[in-house]
Amino acid sequence: MLTKVQIDLCARIEVVLVSPRNPLNIGAAARAMANFGFRHLSVVATHAPLWREARSAIGAPELLQDAKESATLAEAVSRSTLVLGTGTLTHRRPEQPVVPLPGLAPLVSRELAGGGRVAIVFGSEKHGLTREDLSYCNILVEIPTDPHQPSMNLGQAVAVCLYELVSRALPAASIFSDATEKGAAGKTDGAGCGADSGRLDRLAGVVEETMLAAGYSPSSMQAANRHDLRLLLRRLAPTERDARRIMGLFRRILWRMKHDREVN
Amino acid sequence: MLTKVQIDLCARIEVVLVSPRNPLNIGAAARAMANFGFRHLSVVATHAPLWREARSAIGAPELLQDAKESATLAEAVSRSTLVLGTGTLTHRRPEQPVVPLPGLAPLVSRELAGGGRVAIVFGSEKHGLTREDLSYCNILVEIPTDPHQPSMNLGQAVAVCLYELVSRALPAASIFSDATEKGAAGKTDGAGCGADSGRLDRLAGVVEETMLAAGYSPSSMQAANRHDLRLLLRRLAPTERDARRIMGLFRRILWRMKHDREVN
Repeated sequence: MLTKVQIDLCARIEVVLVSPRNPLNIGAAARAMANFGFRHLSVVATHAPLWREARSAIGAPELLQDAKESATLAEAVSRSTLVLGTGTLTHRRPEQPVVPLPGLAPLVSRELAGGGRVAIVFGSEKHGLTREDLSYCNILVEIPTDPHQPSMNLGQAVAVCLYELVSRALPAASIFSDATEKGAAGKTDGAGCGADSGRLDRLAGVVEETMLAAGYSPSSMQAANRHDLRLLLRRLAPTERDARRIMGLFRRILWRMKHDREVN
Repeated sequence: MLTKVQIDLCARIEVVLVSPRNPLNIGAAARAMANFGFRHLSVVATHAPLWREARSAIGAPELLQDAKESATLAEAVSRSTLVLGTGTLTHRRPEQPVVPLPGLAPLVSRELAGGGRVAIVFGSEKHGLTREDLSYCNILVEIPTDPHQPSMNLGQAVAVCLYELVSRALPAASIFSDATEKGAAGKTDGAGCGADSGRLDRLAGVVEETMLAAGYSPSSMQAANRHDLRLLLRRLAPTERDARRIMGLFRRILWRMKHDREVN
């Protein structure tokens, strides 16, 4: 079913489950991944006994054994250049762009064709993704559901999202990729590729340090500023090269401020 | 999320589960239906205790209480003008056209816009749809899965199919429907609409009676002929009016043969 190019592209999409609670749901998510040809599962802040139970279940897909475990979402998505949060948007007013799932393909296919790495993140069964989780996401993907019964089962939400990616984003990306390979060969140096989430976090760290050093705002605002800064960097979506450049600038500013202070 | 027209269209799509075995899967299928705004569930040849368990589960969607129970698939889809079988096509060579799920929208939207009724049929967890079940289907819908792990969980397969219908077939059908209402008003007399499955079965009955009366083939071939005839009529997909006309012709032939026999 999937072409060679599509299988390669699939390897650059990671499924991330944040604090899943039900071993059956973890198994169902993994099964949907296997059905649609995805290999890379990452789990964040799991409850150890539940996670053991899910992995040892009869008929559990192999990819569960290879799943990556992380303590935080920041760590789990650090290598991703496009982080997609999922949810149904009933109460919360989102702080980042919202894209309906049926319209997601062009975004993902462009990212993959450009050499990027995509993470699609699912929250826990009970609460979905928190505001903190969402601040690591570039985009919030909305599954179009009936307002009377908006909340989907985790395994089914994973199945629906992966089906959309496989059937629409991957074919489009593989056409892009073929064109790139056949056209300007060797031009894929990643210069235009977005900075990954880890790079943005390191940049945010330096910016925050500068804000503190400059007495930008009272310390009571520190958590709120950090949150807004994280979102701002994801909205700006700088390329890897630009992110390095901006970081260089802030490092220089920091050095200058410290140096001036020592001199005075 | 859904428009008024789309909700009306949803009411003309029925989800049919044939011999579901696991109450959790029945519940998951019903939940996906509620998530995507579908109301009409039909179950065929259920095991009574399992069915009771599924319906009495905590948090079971209301539509489970209103579900229709049928002894046979023929009975369940008798009012449908387009019957879609689902499966993954690993062993069997199908006897009817196969449409990949991502390409299904134009077919379904045309049927709904023309006033038809659609049934989407899911087989049991263990064996999927049988060859007999499939002979009642106009089309076999293939969910594009990895050949290494083709078989989907029932609840997830239902979720993926309904997502595709809601996000692609319904919006297209509602555009058609709007155009029809605004354009040639009152022209929806159903003349061009396909005959429903029950009509085709009654037609098949008369044709078979004629074949027997005419000594068309040995009685050992009767079951195979019936199967082929069922598929043939679904391939031909006559309109309601044409189906009546053909039935009238065969009734006349039958009467003629009987009359001639009485005379001689």
